[in-house]
Amino acid sequence: MDITDKLNMTMLCDFYELTMGNGYLEAGLKDRITYFDIFFRDVPDHGGYAICAGLERIIAYIQDLHFSEEDIEYLRSKDLFSERFLDYLRDFKFTGDVWAIPEGTPIFPREPIITVRAPAIQAQLVETFLLLIFNHQSLVATKTNRIVRAAEGRVVLEFGSRRAQGTDAAISGARAAYIGGCAGTACTISDQLFGVPAGGTMAHAWVQMFDSEYEAFKTYCEVFPTNATLLVDTYNTLKSGVPNAIKAFNEVLRPKGITKCAIRLDSGDIAYLTREARQMLDEAGWESCKISASNSLDEYIIQDILRQGAKVDLFGVGERMITSKSDPVFGGVYKLAAIEKEDGTIVPKIKISENVGKITNPHFKKVYRIFDKATGKAEADYITVWDEVIEEGQPLELFDPDATWKRRTYTDYTIKPLQEKIFEHGQLVYQQPTLPEIQKYCREQIDTLWDEVKRFENPHNYYVDLSQKLWDIKQDLLRKNYR
Amino acid sequence: MDITDKLNMTMLCDFYELTMGNGYLEAGLKDRITYFDIFFRDVPDHGGYAICAGLERIIAYIQDLHFSEEDIEYLRSKDLFSERFLDYLRDFKFTGDVWAIPEGTPIFPREPIITVRAPAIQAQLVETFLLLIFNHQSLVATKTNRIVRAAEGRVVLEFGSRRAQGTDAAISGARAAYIGGCAGTACTISDQLFGVPAGGTMAHAWVQMFDSEYEAFKTYCEVFPTNATLLVDTYNTLKSGVPNAIKAFNEVLRPKGITKCAIRLDSGDIAYLTREARQMLDEAGWESCKISASNSLDEYIIQDILRQGAKVDLFGVGERMITSKSDPVFGGVYKLAAIEKEDGTIVPKIKISENVGKITNPHFKKVYRIFDKATGKAEADYITVWDEVIEEGQPLELFDPDATWKRRTYTDYTIKPLQEKIFEHGQLVYQQPTLPEIQKYCREQIDTLWDEVKRFENPHNYYVDLSQKLWDIKQDLLRKNYR
Repeated sequence: MDITDKLNMTMLCDFYELTMGNGYLEAGLKDRITYFDIFFRDVPDHGGYAICAGLERIIAYIQDLHFSEEDIEYLRSKDLFSERFLDYLRDFKFTGDVWAIPEGTPIFPREPIITVRAPAIQAQLVETFLLLIFNHQSLVATKTNRIVRAAEGRVVLEFGSRRAQGTDAAISGARAAYIGGCAGTACTISDQLFGVPAGGTMAHAWVQMFDSEYEAFKTYCEVFPTNATLLVDTYNTLKSGVPNAIKAFNEVLRPKGITKCAIRLDSGDIAYLTREARQMLDEAGWESCKISASNSLDEYIIQDILRQGAKVDLFGVGERMITSKSDPVFGGVYKLAAIEKEDGTIVPKIKISENVGKITNPHFKKVYRIFDKATGKAEADYITVWDEVIEEGQPLELFDPDATWKRRTYTDYTIKPLQEKIFEHGQLVYQQPTLPEIQKYCREQIDTLWDEVKRFENPHNYYVDLSQKLWDIKQDLLRKNYR
Repeated sequence: MDITDKLNMTMLCDFYELTMGNGYLEAGLKDRITYFDIFFRDVPDHGGYAICAGLERIIAYIQDLHFSEEDIEYLRSKDLFSERFLDYLRDFKFTGDVWAIPEGTPIFPREPIITVRAPAIQAQLVETFLLLIFNHQSLVATKTNRIVRAAEGRVVLEFGSRRAQGTDAAISGARAAYIGGCAGTACTISDQLFGVPAGGTMAHAWVQMFDSEYEAFKTYCEVFPTNATLLVDTYNTLKSGVPNAIKAFNEVLRPKGITKCAIRLDSGDIAYLTREARQMLDEAGWESCKISASNSLDEYIIQDILRQGAKVDLFGVGERMITSKSDPVFGGVYKLAAIEKEDGTIVPKIKISENVGKITNPHFKKVYRIFDKATGKAEADYITVWDEVIEEGQPLELFDPDATWKRRTYTDYTIKPLQEKIFEHGQLVYQQPTLPEIQKYCREQIDTLWDEVKRFENPHNYYVDLSQKLWDIKQDLLRKNYR
């Protein structure tokens, strides 16, 4: 079962993709093969890397691309499209090729993440949906990964559904957060759909519903003796919440021999309150009781309260993770990189801009990651024209594409292509990993990054370099096209 | 047709709503009538008011609330819920009452926006979904309204799908943006589903697909002579884009007698480029050609470029509107306000917090807006206990609930209840307005606000006051419950 089984998203496109499609048809460009890249220019929060996510949903979308009669009727009502185009849409399906960097991979600015090779109308139509899914899920995976790193091995749970930007933001956001390193979610449907482990116990309303806090805690422990996380801050955490929790644990859990339990704090000075609560619990013989904390947390606040000696075992993180509040936009773009002539020649295309950062890398490309053989660490990513061959035994000279005199030569390296082939002639040829496999892969790949790339403030600018051949082609196109 | 027809969202709940539900059942509280309020504490971007949105979706959700056998099977697999509870879910439906402030209404902190009166399990279950929809759609409507006001009568279009936080953020976001004052969207499916007018013409890829910019423009004008908005910044806006656009208009549109056309800029110095482009178009006899601008706009940048004399007729606003980038979280909460005893007595409940701002307003309440009869302007909102009667002819004394010595007496006023009854015993009793009606209502209601409330920087703090009776009850509960 998948969310996309239930709601076809073909019409989630920008309207201009349809007008351009109609135009390509009328201009005889329907079958022209085009190459588009998704790439991004900046890592959110000025981080050193992002985490790629969303591919599973993109695959489901592409497999299900079609226009219903209802869709075509709606388009006809706009009084704009030719009947020929509407006819064409009736049998529309995706017949192209797609390459993508797998979910969970650390990714860097300006490298091609997803590459689409397809007839112009098809390639143009998928623009918005691919960007939307890639941008959203990568945003949340990237932010979550920062928060998980700040927690230094403590469990991080995703609690943000109520502040998510719409249903999909909650549902798919929990999935992306899991890829980024969350252990679980509060969002039930994300467990049901994707297997992101969901959990939860009580809100303040539960406590208020009873005549006393103690009665609320005791009743809860009786109903769920094996899932007793008690929310202790409804009235007063230290004077009332923690003592009542200890009393309930003693009365209900102790006689059953249950030691697994927890308290949760959702307000107040977490550093101070958890230190005090820890001491009270330990003195009462509840060393096994975990302490969970929530309340507007993010990577900076978590670092800060840990520095202050907070005693927290689990962090519940809500709005600041699910919306990536401090930087809520992942700026992936979808740009034409090449077209294919009828004889199969690939003609590179470039988008010029007054803003140098907005200039695209032209051509059908390949992207590789270079690892140092001795340390196993990722040293640089390397973008080539599609038909270049890298001989792994040979020294490889890389240079900064902006400061070309900065050159480094790698000798003892391994090299790995980053993109996998996902669709070939419209057929899925990729074996999708499971969600736990993606999470594990993500963790392993992050381990290949130097600490300098991982730090939150002023991380090292990871190298993403162009091959000499690609660089030359780009310079040539710039000279020819700049006006 | 509605997005919610296709995907039941009952399982989009926080897991704790299910554990609490199971607990209420086991504790004999299943049929206890509870009152919950949705309210918020702060207006995003430090604005003077927010715009309420999302009710239509909330209605559809409540009408469709049920658990499928598949849902129950999933819950059973968690090995946590009692069979009695799973049985109970099999026939679950919503039987309660709901009051809500209609979509498009300006709303203020601490007043009840949506009030749910229902048996405990039901009222608890809807918490996450109601918050999620209200928070998201109100966020986008509120942000859009700021941007629309900054545009001072110029057309604002929603262009943000590709940067939206998931599919629903794009689809429902476009609807919320329309309520907030957008004229249309690029998002096709939002037109199809909700009637938000969608439009669009071309991306840079269209221009790059042809051998020359001129050929791209000419072809487009030939295919869509009545929808010719040409994107002029692919190579060089003033040296190439605008001259080629004028040439294409002259060649294709002029002979057909078509004067309606436009150019669009998506990069560069909008103030400078649009002034120059305007002059070039006017000198070529294309005074009728509109200028559309996009590129990371928001209310501040729009104000700024208009101040610099930009000549823009339409603003396309993307990521900063659809994510409310500068403040991407609307902080609505859902709090228990009262419970009903078996004899029908309503017992007010309060949530205390060390953080005074987090203390709730207890009890089943009514909220009114007071308008000055002479000016028609909104003067204050007034929250009472549900059974209080306001005699409109009589002088009405309001006081600041925090600084109680600040008192004002209204004599020449009209008073309007803000919440409407939406559900009664689970039945929809509310006639939903159309989307254009909501947009119009929103505009009219904003006209009732003083300019001081509407300004972006340091707006006047609109009064939201409690009746003496409600204030007394709150103080009493605070005294009794503070520990």
